[in-house]
Amino acid sequence: MNQRVLLEVGGLIETPTSVITGPSYILWNQSTIEETGAGEYLGDRSLLTVIRRRNRIAMPGLVNTHGHAAMTLFRSAGDDVPLEKWLKEKIYPLERQLTKEAVYWGTQLACWEMLTSGTTCFTDMYFYMNESARAVHESGIRGVLSIGLLGFTEEMQKQGLADSKSHYETWHGAGEGRISVMLGPHAPYTCPPAFLLQITELSQLLDLPMQIHLSETAYEVAESYRQHGTSPIGLMHSLGVLNRPVLAAHCVHVDDKDISLLAAHDVRVAHNPQSNLKLGSGIAPAVKMRQAGITLGLGTDGAASNNNLDMFEELRLAATLHKGVLQDATAITAPEALEMATVSGARAVFRPTGDGTLTAGAVADVVLLNLESPRFLPTYDLVSNIVYSASAEDVTDVFVAGQEVVRKGEPVTLDTEQIRYQIERITRNFERK
Amino acid sequence: MNQRVLLEVGGLIETPTSVITGPSYILWNQSTIEETGAGEYLGDRSLLTVIRRRNRIAMPGLVNTHGHAAMTLFRSAGDDVPLEKWLKEKIYPLERQLTKEAVYWGTQLACWEMLTSGTTCFTDMYFYMNESARAVHESGIRGVLSIGLLGFTEEMQKQGLADSKSHYETWHGAGEGRISVMLGPHAPYTCPPAFLLQITELSQLLDLPMQIHLSETAYEVAESYRQHGTSPIGLMHSLGVLNRPVLAAHCVHVDDKDISLLAAHDVRVAHNPQSNLKLGSGIAPAVKMRQAGITLGLGTDGAASNNNLDMFEELRLAATLHKGVLQDATAITAPEALEMATVSGARAVFRPTGDGTLTAGAVADVVLLNLESPRFLPTYDLVSNIVYSASAEDVTDVFVAGQEVVRKGEPVTLDTEQIRYQIERITRNFERK
Repeated sequence: MNQRVLLEVGGLIETPTSVITGPSYILWNQSTIEETGAGEYLGDRSLLTVIRRRNRIAMPGLVNTHGHAAMTLFRSAGDDVPLEKWLKEKIYPLERQLTKEAVYWGTQLACWEMLTSGTTCFTDMYFYMNESARAVHESGIRGVLSIGLLGFTEEMQKQGLADSKSHYETWHGAGEGRISVMLGPHAPYTCPPAFLLQITELSQLLDLPMQIHLSETAYEVAESYRQHGTSPIGLMHSLGVLNRPVLAAHCVHVDDKDISLLAAHDVRVAHNPQSNLKLGSGIAPAVKMRQAGITLGLGTDGAASNNNLDMFEELRLAATLHKGVLQDATAITAPEALEMATVSGARAVFRPTGDGTLTAGAVADVVLLNLESPRFLPTYDLVSNIVYSASAEDVTDVFVAGQEVVRKGEPVTLDTEQIRYQIERITRNFERK
Repeated sequence: MNQRVLLEVGGLIETPTSVITGPSYILWNQSTIEETGAGEYLGDRSLLTVIRRRNRIAMPGLVNTHGHAAMTLFRSAGDDVPLEKWLKEKIYPLERQLTKEAVYWGTQLACWEMLTSGTTCFTDMYFYMNESARAVHESGIRGVLSIGLLGFTEEMQKQGLADSKSHYETWHGAGEGRISVMLGPHAPYTCPPAFLLQITELSQLLDLPMQIHLSETAYEVAESYRQHGTSPIGLMHSLGVLNRPVLAAHCVHVDDKDISLLAAHDVRVAHNPQSNLKLGSGIAPAVKMRQAGITLGLGTDGAASNNNLDMFEELRLAATLHKGVLQDATAITAPEALEMATVSGARAVFRPTGDGTLTAGAVADVVLLNLESPRFLPTYDLVSNIVYSASAEDVTDVFVAGQEVVRKGEPVTLDTEQIRYQIERITRNFERK
């Protein structure tokens, strides 16, 4: 394949508010978009690889801003139980049985699921992150990876910092920039203040952003007030954590003061509507946070609490849930929701400006949707069709950094038969209550 | 094909609480299930048509208890605007341009979408119901059809009653029982009390149930109190409408007294979570209604307010939304949600006992799901996988009344190229603001 690829399509979402309906094209060189436009490409085609897909719409790849990829291993292992019981009786006993190998295959399964449902970039926070990074590297997806840091003992803290540093050295910028690294303090209730300060220092030293779970449940916030006299976000502020670039997952139980702090420090928020519903955590005030100017991305969270990694579901939920809660049909519009799932998501995970769009200079992370699906009939408004009607089923082809990773709905880079075999083998041996 | 069909599968959802994991079978004779079981069928196979699908799970077809099928014509024609404006500026001007032909093709598109996403039975309430019935008859889907009755003038009322009677005579029991008829008073705010009484009388005369929109928005309820001194449900009760079998769509804004009335009269409720969210109507107290003993089915509503007819989305939303709202991860469990989408849905639309299950004596409305999908990896709990992880994409084959209507994801009975052509032709000519 020539390095320069011309992709001809039947419709193009450059950004959620810049849409070409009808014949259009994208031209990329290696991993970077050179040009997009309506109609036919009029330049010299002699040295181009031309891919003609007039029955497809091209859109920017979806960005999954929060998750724990290898938790696909625990999909449906414990549903319909309260959060505390879910963690203590279902998830922790399973996580204690995790091996490096299990994380590797669990992440491969996650990559399969994400790529074929149109996600081209995701964040991960989990254990054995070296194995996850290997799986990400092989799959061709774009990954923002962090070791989940728990600080229950001093030894764990020391080890976590050392591992994070070596993870950074090994993987930051790998895969020609497809992989980047963040630091991943799990949460204020698992990382004591002194440890959070050390992580913040390391983040400064390595010039890395951090991601952390904040204010996911009412219980967490109440405990924070009891122990620290302030909210989890108030605590992060008082420790100076928010002076660094931070991606905060969840932010379900936040008050006006929390929102002001997040906005003032340009903290990015990963909104995970489906996981928050399913675990009974609640509904984040996404509209209020948007109005305060906070950059919101969307996330699936892990497959044990979702139970899939389908960003089209989060996109649809972000666009509909808040309308219902606020009884306001204009609460979050289709272009606003699509923005959260693409360009704001890319900003939320600290990707360079341009990512999450199909415009010149951006990375060529491109998803093709099947215009012949009944869900695109009729097509008064392509963005509305994508947000309110389309599904992962409509994803036919996916490119990440200009490379084809999904063709006709099937992964190009992954051995799905092998993944199935390994997942079945590994999970069969888990002891479960 | 022999009349008796043996379908061998890799897992069987007989009912949401009776699940066979592993090799199993269903045997049906014409349209009725004779036998289901685990392992191999040990009877005489000589006169059977044997279909072997060991990499599939069989589940009862989904029942869509509320919708306006031909509104697929208006999919994404007007999103993100408040309900009043949506109706008056977007939908009504389009509906005035409807023709019989448009309704026929719009319903064909709806049948395509519903069948390929695992819905085997649906209700319809719309105009030109003769054309819808034709489309339903041809598609092979099971339909419970009613003419939407508006009573703005005496002439409209008279015509509506006459049309409903002739609709009943022509279509009730057609397609070897696949089609049944209900009466469809649109809503208390479009049907004056005297008209509702006439419809109720006709319902008695013809021995038909009724379906009606009730308490969808806060505005509707406030107006009812202003005009009638009671809620829409209170008004139906005082008119005696609830003494007949009634399916009430929405019931979003209902208080304890409304719920008691619904329960006392065994009124069936169509819960449409996604439509209610998207139009900003609110969130129905589904858990409270279930606890009061009300039979709840799930519905998509029309594609102009959803914007697709995918019951897997409603199923997932029913199972997750109320957990989030009530901050209770046990609010509606996976088997309970699946029950709403199948057996309770069948009861809600007044189908005979057994419908909505795969058990002996029930109709052979069977959906096959792809066990090889990443969404079924791993499979600790098949019902959890279906409710929280699976999607319409996993539907591979569908049988209604024992007849194959979807094969490898594509409709057997419908000409999808023709539908696409006709929908594009018809909608291109709509005048839109």
